[in-house]
Amino acid sequence: MHLRAKPWANEWLTNHSDIVIDQDRATDQIGQWQKLFDQEQPIHVEIGSGKGQFILGMALAHPEINYIGMEIQETAIAIAARKSFDQVGKLPNLRYIYGNGNGVETYFEKSEIDKVYLNFSDPWPKKRHEARRLTYRSFLQSYEAVLPDQGEVEFKTDNRHLFEYSLVSFMTYGMRWSAEDYTLDLHADPDKVMGNVETEYEQKFMAKGQPIYKVKAHF
Amino acid sequence: MHLRAKPWANEWLTNHSDIVIDQDRATDQIGQWQKLFDQEQPIHVEIGSGKGQFILGMALAHPEINYIGMEIQETAIAIAARKSFDQVGKLPNLRYIYGNGNGVETYFEKSEIDKVYLNFSDPWPKKRHEARRLTYRSFLQSYEAVLPDQGEVEFKTDNRHLFEYSLVSFMTYGMRWSAEDYTLDLHADPDKVMGNVETEYEQKFMAKGQPIYKVKAHF
Repeated sequence: MHLRAKPWANEWLTNHSDIVIDQDRATDQIGQWQKLFDQEQPIHVEIGSGKGQFILGMALAHPEINYIGMEIQETAIAIAARKSFDQVGKLPNLRYIYGNGNGVETYFEKSEIDKVYLNFSDPWPKKRHEARRLTYRSFLQSYEAVLPDQGEVEFKTDNRHLFEYSLVSFMTYGMRWSAEDYTLDLHADPDKVMGNVETEYEQKFMAKGQPIYKVKAHF
Repeated sequence: MHLRAKPWANEWLTNHSDIVIDQDRATDQIGQWQKLFDQEQPIHVEIGSGKGQFILGMALAHPEINYIGMEIQETAIAIAARKSFDQVGKLPNLRYIYGNGNGVETYFEKSEIDKVYLNFSDPWPKKRHEARRLTYRSFLQSYEAVLPDQGEVEFKTDNRHLFEYSLVSFMTYGMRWSAEDYTLDLHADPDKVMGNVETEYEQKFMAKGQPIYKVKAHF
């Protein structure tokens, strides 16, 4: 996702540091994320939350879960956080980290978060960029380090190659999934699409009639 | 596949027992399949060969491999064998077994065959029929029993649910595949479609624009 820089982004983020935590502060927050939320309850993290439609929709739909949207692009996270703030104010169960997916181990303790979401991650199609894909083994190691045992990674994408790659990467890493927990065409699967919150990308690709792939894999 | 019975089928099969081996004779043939071919070379078996377009195409394309098409429906195997016989005579590297996929262990010794093909197998969508799916674990056990160590099962289908089920079944059984060895849209994948021999079903589903799923999984 390439977004034109917004002149207001940096200042907005500075003024809303109670909602958007930058990388340095995220590192200081290790072991204490629950303090940033109104209630102590499971924390689910979306890595690469983009313009934030998914994480906002989830936070509104599931007040019993605390959500963190993590995003490395300043413009994207500013758009996401500002839009949600303007629409519904400061939610009790939604925060953002302006930071990088490979930083999760420095932000969270083991079992501090309960679930990782990856949605329409950059496919990095070139073989030499494999290590940048959010389902590459080094990322899986990081997720495993902050999730509980048998913790779950929920992943959806329109990108066939990334999905093929990711299933093999999960399998090779020793992760598992059941037939009930994945689909090669989410929106043609009534059982599996129930409760689905759509991302911006998802709506775009659905409109083109492309299948959305989804899997919930656990360590 | 439901075919109307052909009055000529039974007699044709009886008269061409050098090409089509029935179940009883297949059991007697254990350990001695190479004798039925002109040359001693790897044997590849398609389980559920239907009307036989795939196995005939493979036999013509790969004279260095001995092929066996296995099919439980009398009409289908008679159509397959007669068509190939009428078109190209008795091929040196193609035979058929009029028999059942769960009989492979009674037909072949360990390592007597080198590869198993499953093409557009009956999806048996109902959960109570799971054990009839050719990728159910009891079938995988049978294939493993007749293939060499790390032997390969090559599977393609248009049926999304069967494919989802089968990948999990393979994984749960301990089988593995690489990103290079599977595709969620065979005919959109130039590298992976190379050398592909189409089945009758495949052509039908391609014409409808449906993706063909394929995986080469090994024990």
